[in-house]
Amino acid sequence: MTELQLLPNIHSPRDLDALSLPQLEKLAGEMRDVLCNLVSARSAHFASNLGVVELCIALHQTFDFAHDRLIWDTGHQIYPHKLITGRYKEFSTIRTKGGLMGYPNPVESDYDLFVTGHAGSSVATAVGLASGDDLLRKHENRWSVAVIGDGAFPSGVVYEALNNAKRQGERLLVILNDNRMSICPRVGGMADYLDRLRMNRVYTGFKEEVANLLSRVPLLGDPTERFLVQMKEAVKAGLHGGMLFEELGIRYVGPIDGHNIGLLRKYLRMLQKGTGPVLLHVMTEKGHGFAPAEEDPVLFHAPPQFERAVDRVVSMKKSSSRTYTHVAAEAIHAALGANPRATVMTAAMCQGNKLERVRDDYPERFFDTGICEAHTVAFAAGQAKVGLRPIVDIYSTFLQRSFDHIFQEVSLQNLPVTFMLDRGGLAGPDGPTHHGVFDLGYLRMFPHMVVMAPGDAHDLPLMLNFALEHDSPCAIRYPKANAVTIAADPSIGSRSGIKLGHSEVLREGEDGALIVAGGLLTEALAAADKLAAEGLHFTVINARFIKPLDTEVILDCIRRMQLVLTIEEAALQTGFGSAVLEAAADAGVNASHVVRLGIPDRYIEHGEREELLADLGLDATGIAAKCRQLARVPASASH
Amino acid sequence: MTELQLLPNIHSPRDLDALSLPQLEKLAGEMRDVLCNLVSARSAHFASNLGVVELCIALHQTFDFAHDRLIWDTGHQIYPHKLITGRYKEFSTIRTKGGLMGYPNPVESDYDLFVTGHAGSSVATAVGLASGDDLLRKHENRWSVAVIGDGAFPSGVVYEALNNAKRQGERLLVILNDNRMSICPRVGGMADYLDRLRMNRVYTGFKEEVANLLSRVPLLGDPTERFLVQMKEAVKAGLHGGMLFEELGIRYVGPIDGHNIGLLRKYLRMLQKGTGPVLLHVMTEKGHGFAPAEEDPVLFHAPPQFERAVDRVVSMKKSSSRTYTHVAAEAIHAALGANPRATVMTAAMCQGNKLERVRDDYPERFFDTGICEAHTVAFAAGQAKVGLRPIVDIYSTFLQRSFDHIFQEVSLQNLPVTFMLDRGGLAGPDGPTHHGVFDLGYLRMFPHMVVMAPGDAHDLPLMLNFALEHDSPCAIRYPKANAVTIAADPSIGSRSGIKLGHSEVLREGEDGALIVAGGLLTEALAAADKLAAEGLHFTVINARFIKPLDTEVILDCIRRMQLVLTIEEAALQTGFGSAVLEAAADAGVNASHVVRLGIPDRYIEHGEREELLADLGLDATGIAAKCRQLARVPASASH
Repeated sequence: MTELQLLPNIHSPRDLDALSLPQLEKLAGEMRDVLCNLVSARSAHFASNLGVVELCIALHQTFDFAHDRLIWDTGHQIYPHKLITGRYKEFSTIRTKGGLMGYPNPVESDYDLFVTGHAGSSVATAVGLASGDDLLRKHENRWSVAVIGDGAFPSGVVYEALNNAKRQGERLLVILNDNRMSICPRVGGMADYLDRLRMNRVYTGFKEEVANLLSRVPLLGDPTERFLVQMKEAVKAGLHGGMLFEELGIRYVGPIDGHNIGLLRKYLRMLQKGTGPVLLHVMTEKGHGFAPAEEDPVLFHAPPQFERAVDRVVSMKKSSSRTYTHVAAEAIHAALGANPRATVMTAAMCQGNKLERVRDDYPERFFDTGICEAHTVAFAAGQAKVGLRPIVDIYSTFLQRSFDHIFQEVSLQNLPVTFMLDRGGLAGPDGPTHHGVFDLGYLRMFPHMVVMAPGDAHDLPLMLNFALEHDSPCAIRYPKANAVTIAADPSIGSRSGIKLGHSEVLREGEDGALIVAGGLLTEALAAADKLAAEGLHFTVINARFIKPLDTEVILDCIRRMQLVLTIEEAALQTGFGSAVLEAAADAGVNASHVVRLGIPDRYIEHGEREELLADLGLDATGIAAKCRQLARVPASASH
Repeated sequence: MTELQLLPNIHSPRDLDALSLPQLEKLAGEMRDVLCNLVSARSAHFASNLGVVELCIALHQTFDFAHDRLIWDTGHQIYPHKLITGRYKEFSTIRTKGGLMGYPNPVESDYDLFVTGHAGSSVATAVGLASGDDLLRKHENRWSVAVIGDGAFPSGVVYEALNNAKRQGERLLVILNDNRMSICPRVGGMADYLDRLRMNRVYTGFKEEVANLLSRVPLLGDPTERFLVQMKEAVKAGLHGGMLFEELGIRYVGPIDGHNIGLLRKYLRMLQKGTGPVLLHVMTEKGHGFAPAEEDPVLFHAPPQFERAVDRVVSMKKSSSRTYTHVAAEAIHAALGANPRATVMTAAMCQGNKLERVRDDYPERFFDTGICEAHTVAFAAGQAKVGLRPIVDIYSTFLQRSFDHIFQEVSLQNLPVTFMLDRGGLAGPDGPTHHGVFDLGYLRMFPHMVVMAPGDAHDLPLMLNFALEHDSPCAIRYPKANAVTIAADPSIGSRSGIKLGHSEVLREGEDGALIVAGGLLTEALAAADKLAAEGLHFTVINARFIKPLDTEVILDCIRRMQLVLTIEEAALQTGFGSAVLEAAADAGVNASHVVRLGIPDRYIEHGEREELLADLGLDATGIAAKCRQLARVPASASH
């Protein structure tokens, strides 16, 4: 890394004001250098950040976001913004526990307005900011700016906001950061449209002349002439480009080169003098300035650690670990092979869900809808209605976007759609927008829904096969963690298959029971080992089903045992333990000795999953400690 | 009512085949007559159904929906369809308990594919149907048709589906039923755009000629000529109209007169011979054929019962009852008067939420966003961020669309947005898509969220005032029911104010406790009266807060009483009773004698709210019976 001369002296965006254009370009180079070095040290969002360095500089130099408002949509493109808003010194802590968040974070800086991990909301919140500023202080010339990638553009809330922008957006600027990519290559009609717009720019000067000429055609009255006028309008609109946006009442400007700071400033200043709502179409290159990332922006979206020479990768750390995501992808691949009616859909997460092989081997039954989870679920319901067996493979947290469609299109119609919820639980360094902790509650509340959580890699494919044979909607949620396969205790023998509403007893003991929903089963077993060594013998149950619960086995435990712990990597309010308490009350069983371990009623910060689990007492050590503490109470009380 | 000659003989859509155009027009008249008579008998969706009579006839005569697929979006426009798909005889039972549903219902007929009470999903499900048919039976010429109103068009999922239609929609026909109305007059950029498209139609013939001419302009190679080609494309697109749709890869046809059966058939047959995806823009008049409804389609969307002469209303039954919706609207009006920072937003439900006076008196702080609840919540978050106090007034069931934005934009950012959830509980004749029974669960799972349910009309305005002073998001949910104001028992004195996490004891008794979250409080008090007359004295508690719970009072009850009932008009899984059980377990309190009354784990059909409550044992009679039954058990056990 070459010595940084400019960046260390940028303590606030206002420090940019004194810099010349060549200095700003040098600064961009230094920022890229810092980004490259970061990713040598740890896995982080990379290519998208390389793409917005110049845009970020130009925005902060043109606007004053201590006064104006700036929202970065799908905030993993926030790194350059953090570098120049006073967080350069702590930058190396990003995505580590206690360090900077990998997304905008209002707690860190007043320059960060919203934590934006889920895509597409920025335009709606920016419309709200603009509308609110307008109501509160009519005479201030305060702009609200949303920077949104073309990958987030298929999300319905973007369109809803654009449709409402005309009335509330006098000072609204939407910057479409078009790098022709979602995390995977983008898809859909809007993507094709943006490609056509890109073709337009070479004629910009010429077009303006023609438009001026047209503006001098006189307007007359009779029908033929009215037609000519209409034709004139059509030509003007066609020439302008961006008619799709213009039709919604939003001025369209662009496309312009998003890596040219001078040009960006020129356009931003021009727009700043006018009124909104306006959409500025900026073309950037994901991975810009680092050749390997330019060439493979999918790999470099959030690459594993690598060593680099100036502009090339010397070596990349290959992860050898097999995660539940891999297990799920393999199970889906096998299911599509075995069942010609099985289809699979993902919402721009082909890479995240490791579905590349499924896509390549079953292209006709693989659907990447782009970031639009609501459509994806309703689309799956349509397929299910005609007799297919769609598998909806979406991160737990992102499936929240589909809540109402899980309700109306799937659960109410009782259609056999299978939901695979990846990253159920604590998603690690991505933090609270990515933790998938609400799913057990939001799925089990719906009638007809079967909700499962595999205890290990043995369960997962069996659950998928079960779901594909079951005539109601099923959900399978699993953590962002390395896959583990568990052996049953020798006394119990071999692992069992999946049967609706049946749990699996993996170990027997009389001092208490650990009833586990999902991937924390390994931690519970390790805790049971520790305790057994101390003479405390716990039953360990792989709950498997959150709904329907295995009430027979679970209530029997609660009746017999002095101490029962439910363990889940999900929100305690409404989650698995809550379902257990409901079952106990329904049966009139005393559950006062049932202790629920899980995610408490607050947002959990970012950090490695293991660190977070330890903090929450959900690792083996924490579970064992809790058991020891609780086991002592009834023991001493009974003495 | 004149004698019906044709309609009684239409047992299936195929019976239309033999009818001549004049006969079809006569049939349309008879269908309108039946619709008018129905609404004389009972409140039902009216104006939108009058608007689609001809479209419905033309669709069923052109396509065979025993083979092709038809989805009516926002299915309250389903009545004509029911009339000609074999349900004429039972038609008068519509919206009554045990009778026909007021929405499409697959249980009633194979011609109804999806229950569609929530707007906008039809295009996505139709894309799924088309895609599924394509995968399963490649050689059949099977069309999927979605009929969607312009009112539903602002919903993001529509755009998500259109954006994905190009790849999956070879046999996809979207019919945009444009009556220029949502339930209230429509709003937004898309609405303005549709208005402009409407202006286009007179030139249709002329336009086609010019387009043909243009198609003969030769294509050449150098830049200037490429520009000419581009201009040509621009002119063509501009002439066509519907460029917004064409840009997304969807052919646009129209607009055409939606009350001309002959014309509709001509266009539908033409489209049937081509390929999709195609959008047919049909212009209809809400209330068509009944002058009073044409003139006031807002009033006649779902009018109260009226008597009519042929084409006029003789008298309209005015409801004198004051509902919780009225109380909420008055409270909002007062709040906006008292607090200049308060704003209010609704999603096309200005009429349903009785906000007309708020809109008229505070036009600057009233926002009707159209049907796009996701945007509405994110928009409110933006306003809250700059210091306003937005009140989001949306039906409980429709707020489900905003689940992920309640999470990310409101709860995670801990912004003081106030949610007013109307129709929380059983919504009556609208049935399962409109019952708002999941809200207590889906709101209380989120950190920072305060969740309240007023026990009566006394509580509701106080809760709104509390929420507007509280620095976290708050939700207030209330039923679709007449407002009642309760007096406390003389021994207790006057009613108390609202204090965070505090319940209110309304009556004291030692035989058990009824802990009520929300509007069933009156039923519980009536039950307590009945029981008191029999010598069983129950404590009655107005819980007020679902989150945070009044654990002190509630756990004290559970500890002291032999019998505790929690009562809620919400789903039992994850609801209020579930929260009570969680609190008990957390405190190590035995809750085996806590009985949870509420909505069981199945979908509740349509019917009057009182009928449904009685069926579920949630009225005074049912609650008293349950108490009697349960009180006997411990009594006999202790003897």
